[in-house]
Order: sequence, then C-alpha cells, then structure tokens
Amino acid sequence: MLFGILIDRSVIKVVIHYPNGQARPSHQLSKPTILEGNKKSNFANRGMRFEEAINQSNDYYLSRNIAVVHKKPTPVQIVSVDYPRRSAAVIKEAYFKEASTTDYNGVYKGRYLDFEAKETKNKTSFPLKNFHQHQITHMKMCGNQGGLCFVLLWFSTIQRCFFYPSPLLVSYWETSQRKSLPLGVIEQNGIEISLGIAPRIPYIQAVDAYIQSKETQYGK
Amino acid sequence: MLFGILIDRSVIKVVIHYPNGQARPSHQLSKPTILEGNKKSNFANRGMRFEEAINQSNDYYLSRNIAVVHKKPTPVQIVSVDYPRRSAAVIKEAYFKEASTTDYNGVYKGRYLDFEAKETKNKTSFPLKNFHQHQITHMKMCGNQGGLCFVLLWFSTIQRCFFYPSPLLVSYWETSQRKSLPLGVIEQNGIEISLGIAPRIPYIQAVDAYIQSKETQYGK
Repeated sequence: MLFGILIDRSVIKVVIHYPNGQARPSHQLSKPTILEGNKKSNFANRGMRFEEAINQSNDYYLSRNIAVVHKKPTPVQIVSVDYPRRSAAVIKEAYFKEASTTDYNGVYKGRYLDFEAKETKNKTSFPLKNFHQHQITHMKMCGNQGGLCFVLLWFSTIQRCFFYPSPLLVSYWETSQRKSLPLGVIEQNGIEISLGIAPRIPYIQAVDAYIQSKETQYGK
Repeated sequence: MLFGILIDRSVIKVVIHYPNGQARPSHQLSKPTILEGNKKSNFANRGMRFEEAINQSNDYYLSRNIAVVHKKPTPVQIVSVDYPRRSAAVIKEAYFKEASTTDYNGVYKGRYLDFEAKETKNKTSFPLKNFHQHQITHMKMCGNQGGLCFVLLWFSTIQRCFFYPSPLLVSYWETSQRKSLPLGVIEQNGIEISLGIAPRIPYIQAVDAYIQSKETQYGK
C-alpha cells in the first residue's frame, strides 16, 4: 500500500494508491516539500505567506486598473493524463521543471515590470542562495530590453520589506565575494515598503519612486 | 486494470495502474486530448506545431538579445505529490486550470508585449470561438496600461500567418454579430508575416511595422 498525501489549499487528506501492492506505512514517507498555499511564514503576523500577500496586492492593482501583473504558473512537465470522463482530465504523472524566468511580470503605465519575491529569516543580510543563475540571467536580459526589473525582499523575523533594483543585485552577484547582501546595503540602495491593508504590499509606490529617482538621475 | 497513456516529447508508452482492481481494456479509453509537443498541425509542411514554431522564434530572439518573450507554463492545480526519493517529487494528481492571461508576454525595446497564438483550418475567416472572454479581458487591460497586445493567427490550410492588433480584435468581439473574423478584414487591418527559417515566425518585424504605423498615425 502506498500512501500519498493530498494537499489542497484548505484540506489535507490521505489517500491510498496500489501501484505495486507493496505496503508502505505512512510514517515511512519522506518529508513532503511545501506546496503553494500551504507554507506558513506567518507573514506580518497574519499567518499569510509573503507570496500570497503579493498575489493579493496584484489582484488589488488589477481590479483598480493600476497595473496588470500576474504570477506565472509553476512549470510542470506532464507525462501521463487520464480521462475518466470527457470533461475531466486528470494528470496522473508530472514533474516539477525549473523555471527559466522570474515569477512575476506584467505592465504598468506602459512599462514592462519583472520581479522575483524572496524571503529570509535572517536579520542582518539577505542570503544570495535564494536566487538562481537563471533568474539573474533573465533579469539582466529584461533590463537590457528596457524592462523595469527588481526583487522584493522580505525579512520575516524583523518584518521589513524592500524593493531592490535588479541591476544592483546583478552587479553584486557578479562582483561580490560575499554570500549575502547586507541589510545596510539594501537600506541604502533599495526602497523600503511599508506594509498596508489594501494592497498588503504596495510595491507600485516603490516602482514610482524608483522611476522618479532614475528620471532625476538622468535628467529625463 | 486501468491503463494510462504516458505522453512525452519523444516516446509514447503504456503503463498500468491498479487504482481499484477493475479491469478496463485499452480500447475503452476515451480519446486523449493532445498534449504539448504532441499535436501535429503540419505547420508549414514541416510537421511542426504553430506553437512550437513560435517558441523557436522566441528562442531565436532571446539568444540574439532582440526580445525577451516566453510562453507561460500551463496552469495546473496540484493535488497530490509523492516523494519516492528526496530529490524527485512526482505529481500524482493534478488538474488543468483555466489561464487568466494570454500565453505569451515579454519585453521588446522597453515595450511590454502580450499575445496569444491561434490557428484554424478555415480558409476564409478566423472563428472567434478560438478566443475566450478572459483572454479578451486581459488584452484589454494590458492595452489600457500601454502594453502592445496582439494575436498571431495561423491559417493552416492556406498557410498564411497574420499579426492582428488586440484593440481591433476586442472591438470586433464586442460589437460584431458575426462568429468569425473574415480573412478580408484581417488582410486589411492586420500585418501578414512571411514565414522564415530563423526565426520561423518573424513576428517582431510585424511589431516594428505596427509601432511605426501607430507613430505615423499619432504623429509621434
């Protein structure tokens, strides 16, 4: 008997599959990695994930015609599909694929926005291991095309959120020997985002401030 | 015995599941819908899908720093995951979700690009049933934010490909009583794309022509 853990947004239940007739008690299951909607980082003391708070903020911006930003679906390689009824296809075997881009993109006042959201429990610096080479490469290429790219950094322990421009992150990634980005550097070069109610993470304010600072810098 | 069809880019094989011990011969399987990489529309007489040709074109543009455009992953609701080894998570139950956006977006020369690619076997018009309300709504909202939105239309029988601006499609969708967009209208208001080798579908040329026509129109 092989047990698989069904994880949904609201319920966790256990079902039984019989792939080979071999018994496998539930306590022998390896630890499942955490799925969308199930991770609890106690975001801003409301039991909400950082990612979920961003998605809510995107919904807010979308519903008010402020910006159109969506999280990209998790890339999955589908291998096997069952069709118990014509209307309901059930994916029976699939694998997680590595994404080739960042998680979020969209359009705001004619500008292409592209960002990644990451969190850490650290208090004094942001570990660079949170980022992957393909994300850095993607942000670089989008920046070369004139896209506005950044990362949203969430320090869950000290409850602080920052907008940090990708060009500075890329530069630090490529030149620094350090394995993390010090909070002092983030405070100096990033833009702190004060959490709100609606939207929860008003990152568009930071985007505006960033655009203004660039226009001032280049005298546009 | 329940048979499921495993579909991969390169191989098709049959495996056996034992969900309930009930026998179900393979000839009773309902017809599987066609998965990514497996559909043959004989695109440009090369046995290639239209979508695949666009993905190749995106790869071409990406590798030459011309534009950064990616197809969004198919949205999937993951319900059950097995962890036979710590390194290899296997999705055992998942369902297709309806996308809330179009399939492609990205950045080109500072502009936000957003498009959907569709094909028809019709020879004289493009059936509007190929589009869904959520795609129309999304294109409208992106357009309101200053994004450059369009559709790529492929007439597989007559082997002709068109760039058609979303604002015109949205307008036709909302005002016309007809269920399809006549080829004559597409020829008049769209931009025909001559197929190439690299890239296979040089849609960026059409984007350039469209930008130029808008700038001429508005005297920018």
